Amino acid sequence: MSDDRPEDIDALIALMARLPGLGPRSARRAVLHLIKKRGALMTPLATTMAQVAETARECVNCGNITTKDLCDICTAPKRATGQICVVEDVAGLWAMERAGVFRGRYHVLGGTLSALDAVGPEDLRIPQLVRRVTEESVTEVILALPATVDGQTTAHYIAEQLPEVTVTTLAQGVPVGGELDYLDDGTISAALSARKSV
Amino acid sequence: MSDDRPEDIDALIALMARLPGLGPRSARRAVLHLIKKRGALMTPLATTMAQVAETARECVNCGNITTKDLCDICTAPKRATGQICVVEDVAGLWAMERAGVFRGRYHVLGGTLSALDAVGPEDLRIPQLVRRVTEESVTEVILALPATVDGQTTAHYIAEQLPEVTVTTLAQGVPVGGELDYLDDGTISAALSARKSV
Repeated sequence: MSDDRPEDIDALIALMARLPGLGPRSARRAVLHLIKKRGALMTPLATTMAQVAETARECVNCGNITTKDLCDICTAPKRATGQICVVEDVAGLWAMERAGVFRGRYHVLGGTLSALDAVGPEDLRIPQLVRRVTEESVTEVILALPATVDGQTTAHYIAEQLPEVTVTTLAQGVPVGGELDYLDDGTISAALSARKSV
Repeated sequence: MSDDRPEDIDALIALMARLPGLGPRSARRAVLHLIKKRGALMTPLATTMAQVAETARECVNCGNITTKDLCDICTAPKRATGQICVVEDVAGLWAMERAGVFRGRYHVLGGTLSALDAVGPEDLRIPQLVRRVTEESVTEVILALPATVDGQTTAHYIAEQLPEVTVTTLAQGVPVGGELDYLDDGTISAALSARKSV
């Protein structure tokens, strides 16, 4: 970028700018901040990052990120085996875990079906899900997929593949704390048709 | 944070969240992205970061970031020695260099004077600037300091310390491409009083 900036620092800025949510300007700011907080932040960050790059991998059973063959959720004896919650990606799994209300196991698809992006069932972890449902004697599969067209297509496809178990999906409606005036028409319409008696 | 996430990954998220412009959510997204692009992004980023943490330091002359005793600008034979451009921090120096119009040397103050934050002249690199002006037979000091109260206080203070040389400051006015309707009153007022004949 600049012949007046040391090469390493240019390289670091270029790499940081490839992170989601960071552009060239915020990458420069982040690098200056890192250099300022070298001992307290930059060195530990570099070390931890190298460590995670070395050890992180996919759980062979559910697709969660782990440092072992099987992730902590798949091996937790306290978690119910009868229920599998299907999420699009690990971010979805983490979001469910933050809510802290689901105590079963997960299955990370690795995406959603998409005709446009040519993502078919074999590109996702759907065959593995079907296998798990039989092997782990699952009684309910909860689909926590995005409320997009692709997400819903994927949900329908999965439900078709699993005729022997109960397949449910997260309820759609008004978010907690949501004001009607700020909600889109689709959400209001979904919340109205799924209305409940008080 | 979560007992269902490997410790290293939790630690990495916590460290990433301390970067300017990243919060907990974007730090999680960044870490998932890094794990996805492990070979192409995460490993080189960790390596480069460790390298910069090891080698980056301040130029003993001007305060710029460098990997040697003196930065590339201070040692560049092509750059004029008669002019010093004073900036608040390295981000300011980089911004000036991107504009690519200044071919003299720099001096990085490391902040601005601030009564509120108790930053006095001895906390900044002002004595070194005064010394450089004599030693490097400087004829002009260009102040490229922020157009804030503290920045302007600092500019006045520096001008007082350097009675023998020409001290100039960046012009204030309408930014290139700026529309009047979007400009603050202060800028319009400054641009009007500094108006020029066409």
